[in-house]
Amino acid sequence: MKEGWCSFDISEPNFRPLVVIELAKGTKEETREWLTKRIVDKKANGGAQLLVKPLVTENDDQNIYLVGASHFRLLLGAEAVGLVKECNDNSMRTFTYTSRKTFKDFAEDNHNFLTMAECQYIIKHELENLRAKDEKIIPGYPQAKLYPGKSIVRRLLTNGILVQIFPLHDQEELKKLRHTWYGRVKIGYQPLDEIRCYFGETITLYFGFLEYFTFALIPMAVIGIPYYVFAWEDYDKYVMFATFNLLWSTVILEVWKRFCAVMTYRWGTLLMKRQFEEPRPGFHGVLGINPVTGREEPVYSSIRRQIRIYLVSLPFVCLCLYFSLYVMMIYFDLEQWALDYHQENESNFSSLLLFVPSIIYAVVIEIMNRIYRYAAEFLTSWENHRLESSYQNHLILKVLVFNFLNCFASLFYIAFVLFDMKLLRQSLATLLITSQILNQFAEAFLPYWLQKRHKKRMKKKMFSQKTDTDLSLVEQVSLEKEMGTYFGTFDDYLELFLQFGYVSLFSCVYPLAAVFAVLNNITEIYSDALKMCRVYKRPFAEPTASIGVWQLAFETMSVISVVTNCILIGMSPQVNALFPDSKMDLILTVALVEHVLLAMKFVMAFVIPDKPRDIQIKLARLEFESLEALKQQQMKLAAESLKE
Amino acid sequence: MKEGWCSFDISEPNFRPLVVIELAKGTKEETREWLTKRIVDKKANGGAQLLVKPLVTENDDQNIYLVGASHFRLLLGAEAVGLVKECNDNSMRTFTYTSRKTFKDFAEDNHNFLTMAECQYIIKHELENLRAKDEKIIPGYPQAKLYPGKSIVRRLLTNGILVQIFPLHDQEELKKLRHTWYGRVKIGYQPLDEIRCYFGETITLYFGFLEYFTFALIPMAVIGIPYYVFAWEDYDKYVMFATFNLLWSTVILEVWKRFCAVMTYRWGTLLMKRQFEEPRPGFHGVLGINPVTGREEPVYSSIRRQIRIYLVSLPFVCLCLYFSLYVMMIYFDLEQWALDYHQENESNFSSLLLFVPSIIYAVVIEIMNRIYRYAAEFLTSWENHRLESSYQNHLILKVLVFNFLNCFASLFYIAFVLFDMKLLRQSLATLLITSQILNQFAEAFLPYWLQKRHKKRMKKKMFSQKTDTDLSLVEQVSLEKEMGTYFGTFDDYLELFLQFGYVSLFSCVYPLAAVFAVLNNITEIYSDALKMCRVYKRPFAEPTASIGVWQLAFETMSVISVVTNCILIGMSPQVNALFPDSKMDLILTVALVEHVLLAMKFVMAFVIPDKPRDIQIKLARLEFESLEALKQQQMKLAAESLKE
Repeated sequence: MKEGWCSFDISEPNFRPLVVIELAKGTKEETREWLTKRIVDKKANGGAQLLVKPLVTENDDQNIYLVGASHFRLLLGAEAVGLVKECNDNSMRTFTYTSRKTFKDFAEDNHNFLTMAECQYIIKHELENLRAKDEKIIPGYPQAKLYPGKSIVRRLLTNGILVQIFPLHDQEELKKLRHTWYGRVKIGYQPLDEIRCYFGETITLYFGFLEYFTFALIPMAVIGIPYYVFAWEDYDKYVMFATFNLLWSTVILEVWKRFCAVMTYRWGTLLMKRQFEEPRPGFHGVLGINPVTGREEPVYSSIRRQIRIYLVSLPFVCLCLYFSLYVMMIYFDLEQWALDYHQENESNFSSLLLFVPSIIYAVVIEIMNRIYRYAAEFLTSWENHRLESSYQNHLILKVLVFNFLNCFASLFYIAFVLFDMKLLRQSLATLLITSQILNQFAEAFLPYWLQKRHKKRMKKKMFSQKTDTDLSLVEQVSLEKEMGTYFGTFDDYLELFLQFGYVSLFSCVYPLAAVFAVLNNITEIYSDALKMCRVYKRPFAEPTASIGVWQLAFETMSVISVVTNCILIGMSPQVNALFPDSKMDLILTVALVEHVLLAMKFVMAFVIPDKPRDIQIKLARLEFESLEALKQQQMKLAAESLKE
Repeated sequence: MKEGWCSFDISEPNFRPLVVIELAKGTKEETREWLTKRIVDKKANGGAQLLVKPLVTENDDQNIYLVGASHFRLLLGAEAVGLVKECNDNSMRTFTYTSRKTFKDFAEDNHNFLTMAECQYIIKHELENLRAKDEKIIPGYPQAKLYPGKSIVRRLLTNGILVQIFPLHDQEELKKLRHTWYGRVKIGYQPLDEIRCYFGETITLYFGFLEYFTFALIPMAVIGIPYYVFAWEDYDKYVMFATFNLLWSTVILEVWKRFCAVMTYRWGTLLMKRQFEEPRPGFHGVLGINPVTGREEPVYSSIRRQIRIYLVSLPFVCLCLYFSLYVMMIYFDLEQWALDYHQENESNFSSLLLFVPSIIYAVVIEIMNRIYRYAAEFLTSWENHRLESSYQNHLILKVLVFNFLNCFASLFYIAFVLFDMKLLRQSLATLLITSQILNQFAEAFLPYWLQKRHKKRMKKKMFSQKTDTDLSLVEQVSLEKEMGTYFGTFDDYLELFLQFGYVSLFSCVYPLAAVFAVLNNITEIYSDALKMCRVYKRPFAEPTASIGVWQLAFETMSVISVVTNCILIGMSPQVNALFPDSKMDLILTVALVEHVLLAMKFVMAFVIPDKPRDIQIKLARLEFESLEALKQQQMKLAAESLKE
C-alpha cells in the first residue's frame, strides 16, 4: 500500500481517510494534478490545505481519491464553519482555535474532540469553498468555464468530471451504533446522541421526530382501541375522542418545538450562526454582478423565474391535480361496479372483490405520487432557483399540495359528497394500510435486498471471505461507492406527514388509524435505521436547529383537521338526533364549536413557549455576555481615546 | 449667569444644555455633590463623563441641573448605544468612533451629525447606566440602599430624591417643525423625517402609522359614501363592500410592515441591535443572583408572579368584564324605556331622547375604560414584572380585552342576539362619534387650554412680555418642568385600535364609519401634533423598528371582523331571500365563504414579503459583509497559525 501515499502528506504520518472523491473514468492527468494540488495547497495560496491520497485499485485507474486533514487543520475548519461546542463550565460556545483550551474534552492529542461526522462536514465545507482564483477554465476541459470566486467542486460536479463526493463509513463505529440502535430487541429510546455523532443533526432530528411522534400517537391509539373492540358508536364518545385528538395534536406539535430546542441546544446547532448561502450547483445564468456580494457570478432575472413559475409550473400542477381527481372518479366507478357485482352474485370471491378497487387505487396513488415527484423535481430545477433553500421550498410546496389532494381527495369526496361513513372507514383503512406496506417495501427492504445481492457478488469477485469489519480500505471504498445515495429526509417526512393526515383528518370516524400508525412507525424506525446503516452511502452531516418547513406543514394539517372533524361530528346521526327540530341550530352549534377550537389552538400555540425556560435563560446569558464583551471593548476604546 | 457654571466644565467652552434633572426640594447638599461628581467623573472611574451645570433661579434652590456633553463624548455614546447611521456609500452601518470618517455628513466640527433627539437619548442612556460602585447607600439617605451595579438614577427615582429627568425643547427647531408639520394649511404628507429628528422613532412611527392608516381608510370611505347617499340596501353591493373591506384590511396591514421597514431602514433602527434589557424601575425583590447576568440584583420568584397573575389579576379582569356586561344590560333597559316613551308621546323632544341612552352609554364606556386603565396599571405593576417589555405586554393584554368588550359588547348583543340592524347602525354611529369627540377633547384641547392658562400665569409672574423664542433658559426650564408628561403612544394606538374595530367589525352595516374615521384622523393628526409640540414636556426619543405588539392586535381584529361580517351578511334579509327553501344551505354557504376568506387572509399574509426586495438585498449585503469579515479574520489567523 505504501506506494499509494501521495507526496503531499509526508507531514502527517497518521493519515485518516474521511471523504472519498470519485472522478469520472478517463479524467485527464492534467485535471487530476491541478485538483489535488489545489486541495493540498496552503490556505494563503487559496488552497484548502487538506490531505489527499489516491486510492490504488487493481485496474489502476487512479480516479478515486481519499481526502483527510491534520487534526490542527480540522480545528481551524471547525472555527470556520462556526461549530458550537460545550465548554468546561457546561455552557455552549462557538469554537475558536485560540480559546480551544476552555472546551470540554479538549486535549491537543484527543482526536475525538470532533466527531467523525463533524470532521467530514468540515472537509465538505472546505472542498466546496475551494474557489477559482485566476483560472478561466478547468485545466484539460476548455468547455468548463470558471470565473474568480466560483466554487471549483461545484463546477466539476455540474460538468460531470467529478462523479461524487461522499464520506466514508467507519465500520467499527457503525457496528457499535447498529448494535445500540436496532441490533438488540429492546423497549426504549433511540441512542440519538450516538446517531448524531455518526450521521449529523438533520438525520437525527428526523429520527427524533419519528420517535417523538410515535410516542405522541400512543395515547390516541390506546384511547382508540376500545372504540373498535366494543364497537362504540355513541356520539358523545366520538366527540370526546375528536376533541382530545385536536387539542392533543396542537400540544404535541408545540411540545416538539421545546423538545427540539433542548436537543439542538445540547448539540450546539441551536446557537450556530447561519452560513451565507451559496448558489445551488444547478443554478445557471449570464455573468453579472450579484447585488448582495458585489461579486461577478451568474445572475438570473427574478421576473423570468416568476414567469416560469406562474405560466408553466402552476398550470402544470393544476393539470396534475385535475388528472388526480379524474383518476379518483374512475376509482369510484370501479367501486360501484364491484358493489353491483357483489350484490348480484354474493360469494366469498365477490366480497373479497370489494376491497380490490381500494387496493388498486392505493397502488395507483403511490405510483402517481412518485411520477409527480420526478416531474416536480424537474420543474423546480428548471425554474432555476438561486438558493438551495428556495428550491426546496418550491419543491416541497408543489409535492405537498399534490400528495395531499391525491391521498385525501377520495376521502373528502366520500365524506362530504357521498356522506357514506362506512365506505369512508373502509377506504381510509385500505389506503392507510396499503400505503404503509408499499412504503416499507419500496423504501427499505427492496434496496436492502438489492444491496445484499450486490455485496455478495462483489465479495465473490474479490474472492475474499472476510466479514465486514475486516474489509481492506480498497474493498470498502469500492463497495460504498456503488451504494445508493440518500437524498435527504424529504420522503421520510412526507410519509409521516401523510400518515398524520390519515390519523387526524378523519380521526373521529376511524379511531384505529392511530394504532396502525404506531405499529407502522415502530417498524419504520427499524427499517429507516437499517436503510441508513446498510443500504445507502453514508450521507454528509448537515447541522440544523429544527425540522424547518415541516413544522409549518404539520401545523397546517392540524388546523385543517379541526375543520374536517367538526363537520364529521356534525354529520353523525347521533348528533343530528340531538337537534331533531332544527338543522340550523345543529350547524350553528358545529360552527361555533369549530371556531372555539380554532381559537383555542391559536391561543395554545401562542401561550406555550417555544423554548423551555432553562434554554431561554442560557440563550439570554450568551446574548448578555456578547453585549457585555462589546461594551467592555467600547469602554476600553473610550478610555484610551479620552486619555489622549 | 456666569456664576451658574459649574467648575467641571471649564474644558468645554460652549456648553449646550440637553437634559434637565430636577431633584426634590431640600435635597441634601451631600447628595447633590455626590451625584454631580458621579455624572462628570471620568469613565475610567465609573462616571458618566458628562457636563453638568446647576440652574440658578430666583429663589436659589439649586435643585435643577442641566446636563450636556462634549461633542466627542456624544460620539462615543452613539457608539455605545449602537446608533446606525448612513455611510458615504449610502449603506447603513453601526456607528463606531474609529470609522467615523466614513459616515455621511460627518466632520469633526459638524455638531449636527447627531440629531438633538439622538444626543438626548445618548445622555439618558449614559445617566441610566451610571452604576453604584462600592456605595452601599445614597449619601445622605441611609434608607436608600444601593448594591454594586445598581443604576443610581433608577434608585434615586424610586426613592423620590430625583423628581424627573426630561430633555429640553429647542425653541428654534420646534418653531420650524411646528410650521412644516401643522402650521400651514396644506394637503400632503407629514414631515416624518423632521419629526423623527426632533421626537425620535417611536413617536414618529405612531404618526406614520396614523397617516398611513388614514390614507388606507380613504378607499373604504369613498366606496362607503354612495351607500349612504343613495341608501343602497342591495345585498350584493353589501357583500362586495364587505369582501373588499376584509381583503383590503389584510393588504393594508401587510403593506404597512413593508412601509415601516423602508422608514426604519432609512432611520437606521431596523438594523439596531437590541440592547440588553435592565429591570424596570419599579421592580423589587430580595437580593439574589440573576441566572442570566450572574450579577447580584433583586430577584422575584416567577411562581409568586404567576400566582398574582392567575389568582388576583385574572379574577379581577373577569369581574370587570362581568361588570361591563351588567352596565350594558342597564343601557338596554334605558334604551327600551326611551323607545316606550317615544311611542307614547311622540314629539321632537322624545325623538331626541332616543339618542340619549346611547350617548350616556358612550360616556360611561369612556369613563369605565379610563378607570379600568388605572386599575390595570396598578395590578400589572403589583405583579412585579422584571422587564418593562413584559410589563407592557401584560398591561396591553389586560387593557385590550376589557376595552374590546366594553366598546363592542353592546354592538355584538344588538347584532347577534337582538338581530336589530337599525339599532346596530344607530348605536354604532353614536358610539363612534361620541367616543371620537370625547377623545379629541380629553386628549388635546383640554390639556392645551390648561397649559395655555398656566403659561400665561407664569409669564405674568415673571413680568416678561417676550415671545416664546426669546425666553431665557431659566424661564424655559421652569415652564417646561411644569408641563405634563407624555406617557408614551399606548393611548394613541389604543384609540386607533378601537376605531379600527368600529370600522371593520360591522363594516357591512355601516359603511359610513370609514368616513367618520378618516375625518377624525385628519383632525387627530393635528391635535396629536399640537399635543406633542405644545402641551407636553418633550419626551425622550426611543429607537424602535416596528409598532410591535400593535401589529398583532390589529391583525387579530381583522380576523375577528371576517367572522362578524360573514355572519352579518348571512343574516341580511336580501341574502336570506336568496335561499328561500333552506336555511341550512344559507348557513353552509356563509361558513364556506368565511373559511375561504380566512384561508385567503392567511395565504396573503404569508405570500406578501414583510420587507421590500431592495431592503432585503441591503440587509443581506450587510449580513454577507459581516460574515466575510469574520472569515477574513479567521483566514488571517489560520494563515498565521500555519506559518508557525
